[in-house]
Amino acid sequence: MRVNTRGRIQSHRTVDFDVRANAVRLIEQRLLPHEFRIVAMPDYRATARAITDMVVRGAGAIGATAAFGLAQGARAFRGQGLAAFARQVERVYATLKAARPTAVDPVNAMDMVRARMASGTSVAEQQALALEAARAFADEDVAHCEAIGQHGEPLVQEGMRVLTHCNAGWLAFVDVGSATAPLYAAQAAGRQFHVFCDETRPRCQGASLTAWELAQQGISHQVIADNAAGHLMQRGEIDLVIVGSDRVLGRTGEVANKIGTYTKAVLAAHHRIPFYVAIPLSTIDWHLRSGGEIPIEERAADEVLGAWGRVRASASRRRRGSGAGGEPAYVRIANPTSDARNPGFDVTPARLVTGIITPAGIFRPRELWRNRGPLGGPE
Amino acid sequence: MRVNTRGRIQSHRTVDFDVRANAVRLIEQRLLPHEFRIVAMPDYRATARAITDMVVRGAGAIGATAAFGLAQGARAFRGQGLAAFARQVERVYATLKAARPTAVDPVNAMDMVRARMASGTSVAEQQALALEAARAFADEDVAHCEAIGQHGEPLVQEGMRVLTHCNAGWLAFVDVGSATAPLYAAQAAGRQFHVFCDETRPRCQGASLTAWELAQQGISHQVIADNAAGHLMQRGEIDLVIVGSDRVLGRTGEVANKIGTYTKAVLAAHHRIPFYVAIPLSTIDWHLRSGGEIPIEERAADEVLGAWGRVRASASRRRRGSGAGGEPAYVRIANPTSDARNPGFDVTPARLVTGIITPAGIFRPRELWRNRGPLGGPE
Repeated sequence: MRVNTRGRIQSHRTVDFDVRANAVRLIEQRLLPHEFRIVAMPDYRATARAITDMVVRGAGAIGATAAFGLAQGARAFRGQGLAAFARQVERVYATLKAARPTAVDPVNAMDMVRARMASGTSVAEQQALALEAARAFADEDVAHCEAIGQHGEPLVQEGMRVLTHCNAGWLAFVDVGSATAPLYAAQAAGRQFHVFCDETRPRCQGASLTAWELAQQGISHQVIADNAAGHLMQRGEIDLVIVGSDRVLGRTGEVANKIGTYTKAVLAAHHRIPFYVAIPLSTIDWHLRSGGEIPIEERAADEVLGAWGRVRASASRRRRGSGAGGEPAYVRIANPTSDARNPGFDVTPARLVTGIITPAGIFRPRELWRNRGPLGGPE
Repeated sequence: MRVNTRGRIQSHRTVDFDVRANAVRLIEQRLLPHEFRIVAMPDYRATARAITDMVVRGAGAIGATAAFGLAQGARAFRGQGLAAFARQVERVYATLKAARPTAVDPVNAMDMVRARMASGTSVAEQQALALEAARAFADEDVAHCEAIGQHGEPLVQEGMRVLTHCNAGWLAFVDVGSATAPLYAAQAAGRQFHVFCDETRPRCQGASLTAWELAQQGISHQVIADNAAGHLMQRGEIDLVIVGSDRVLGRTGEVANKIGTYTKAVLAAHHRIPFYVAIPLSTIDWHLRSGGEIPIEERAADEVLGAWGRVRASASRRRRGSGAGGEPAYVRIANPTSDARNPGFDVTPARLVTGIITPAGIFRPRELWRNRGPLGGPE
């Protein structure tokens, strides 16, 4: 997507590959929204560390990063013979897999790359196939998000006020994003609309990442406290809700997503406001039989007891739009002797969800199973 | 209430008076939850500044502060004659009234003090009556909160998990508080229960003030992100909600309170969890005919775009329970070029409120008008 750095507008993907330097190029997401910087990972170990250290995050983005990392490691092979090459590829695979052990996307992405490599009959050929496969994975991620955008675009009508939660934008994918895709498509169609970004405590990805994305694309938006969504709905100031998801159950239509999603879904149903979930096909879990089986991660209390940001710099640097300023810092907000509960995710039942926007079309959540054919589900 | 400062347990009111020094003594609330300090206001101008500068906040607390400030100014009179004394009292009254122009409590409190002074026939007598009246105002505030506690206490059953929002605790009154009163009374009755404190973005009074209060009283509690309440209700982990209010409409039962209250009320109704509002009688507005007439203050965007706290100090000072540590700071969380909407309050309709806990008993919100006699309403 478009990035405006000091008046210079450029197009970037979240994850890219520099063939000449054999380097994986990533947006350093830990600096956002305060600084935009592209960092080059010079070898596959650095690429793995970038996943571990959250330089890059989001299902599609870390899948593509692992795919490129595997190609990078394969292309760095300087030995002799296919057997030694295969051992090198195994080492690279294991290192990248261990970078984020709970995620499934890097493994799926690398399995695809390895399968494609198998048809090569020489080291050089396999190296070329690895890069080609990684590129194909990244391009498919973008194509899926664009298809989500095409299906979701008609939902975003002229003048609408749209609520989002957390970040399921292009920073979480290779480009375009899932929940943001219908917004970008509606903008491309020439429509004017306004987005309210839930700040999404405790990690505030809405205030930091989604607001940054929308600002770069020139989409009208405002950040709101999570507490304000109900009030705005009550006053008729929200027409549509679009969120992403970490896992949608193909059998039940239940939606696991960032904590607070369920609250927004209850509010939307109470006010009869359409509530949509936008996802690539890889987000559909065809195995689990109930949302109760989804493990809800209990995260560190410090996330709730304080906040990360940049300490306000001097007045001259505080002007709106001045970009970076101030040192990164964590401030403790809560009483120092108090503890916190911090469930990271919640599960929204199908009855509160108007529709699931996928690359294959929009489906009612309870109709996913019946449509599992076009959605890539089991027989 | 009880305050534990470095292992020393003392009892404090939010607002008190030092007769010998003719000083108003206040808890310096801007330092909480990180530091507990009592500050003495040496003259009525300092007392007025303390109201303006938010050293003290909360309806009951600023009412009592103004009442004591008026007595303080009257007692400082060094001139001759009742006429000159009356002019001095007028100056004091005007100064304290201007300290928080939108609040009604300081004015009501001072009117009561002036009315009581009128029966005095000498300067000395009027000075004594002023102090006596201010004391009576403060004591009545405490008695009202204690009565709220007695009526609300049976709601807080053994083992319950109670959700609170924002701070309507003893720091907002002279002592005991409104929403906290049933909790303190249940604790005094020997019951064990657990409180989830909504952090209450954007100003986080739940995480800072309510959590601090409950920690001081030794009540089991945890801070949660505002986003987590729905999830906890869905999982059956919340049994009761008690909040305070800035204004309850006597004619309709509508409840104006800190932003996010309406969201919690919708969630509570969705999960059939009792939702109570605890208020002194002075919070009932008998005039307005609809919640739509209540002005909703749009507050500064900076509140949503960042957070105030203490910058995390070195590891040795970070141990839990170590109290103060780190410098006060504001951190910017949101994208630097984004703006925010920040409605400060919302209005909850009567149908979502189980009951209003008052010093005169618990009433269904729609039954306030019928019971306006015992509730101090109009004929």
